[in-house]
Amino acid sequence: MAREFQLDPRLAADSRPVADLGLCTVRLMEDARFPWLLLVPRQPDLVEIIDLDADARTVLMEEIARAAAALQAVTACDKLNIGALGNMVRQLHVHIIGRFEGDAAWPGPVWGVGTAEPYADTARERLVNAVAAGLAG
Amino acid sequence: MAREFQLDPRLAADSRPVADLGLCTVRLMEDARFPWLLLVPRQPDLVEIIDLDADARTVLMEEIARAAAALQAVTACDKLNIGALGNMVRQLHVHIIGRFEGDAAWPGPVWGVGTAEPYADTARERLVNAVAAGLAG
Repeated sequence: MAREFQLDPRLAADSRPVADLGLCTVRLMEDARFPWLLLVPRQPDLVEIIDLDADARTVLMEEIARAAAALQAVTACDKLNIGALGNMVRQLHVHIIGRFEGDAAWPGPVWGVGTAEPYADTARERLVNAVAAGLAG
Repeated sequence: MAREFQLDPRLAADSRPVADLGLCTVRLMEDARFPWLLLVPRQPDLVEIIDLDADARTVLMEEIARAAAALQAVTACDKLNIGALGNMVRQLHVHIIGRFEGDAAWPGPVWGVGTAEPYADTARERLVNAVAAGLAG
């Protein structure tokens, strides 16, 4: 029986669903300090970007670009940070983070810095809806 | 007169040339703690990945994959870290880092951690040559 994609439980616990694109499920990290999306390709057993074939890598890049453009448009961030690390959680996932000069980790990377702060419900809903609309547009 | 690509002087100072691919120039960061490549698209005035058009993004993804596969083959690293941050140096550049469990920053990201350690000349030359051969192969 073919293995099916299942979102890693740590990624699931740390984030909320935004939208599904052709390849990736898009999620918002539950950390109000940084507007921060995760793109997770819905294929089983992926660890590295080079585990995807060339066609899927092209789709991944286009979905990264769509999500990055939507996040930039919604947040008017100063800089985008995009990365696939996976040192802690091996399931392939791409971070897209809107950075602001003077934010809680600036100018360093966000990973491993301090403690995540939960969103207020209205703020989370507004951001999820705005990004989802940007991805659909 | 059209602006020409010029490598940011901070990137130039921190790294050594490896090879030129169709879009990107590939460089080795001068830090013996981590095998660490930079891919810098040779177009002027780029800051974000979404400043590239869709065709160039596809080429960038394929050059990232080639460089990542070469670095993985040469170093037998445990994990690849791939990212475009640019909080310090705005010229678009993509980091491809071979990570080892227990390395000087594990399991955190490498950026901003400690102080770069220069390579011994023979070690640098061996790594540059091996990666260049992997990119050509």
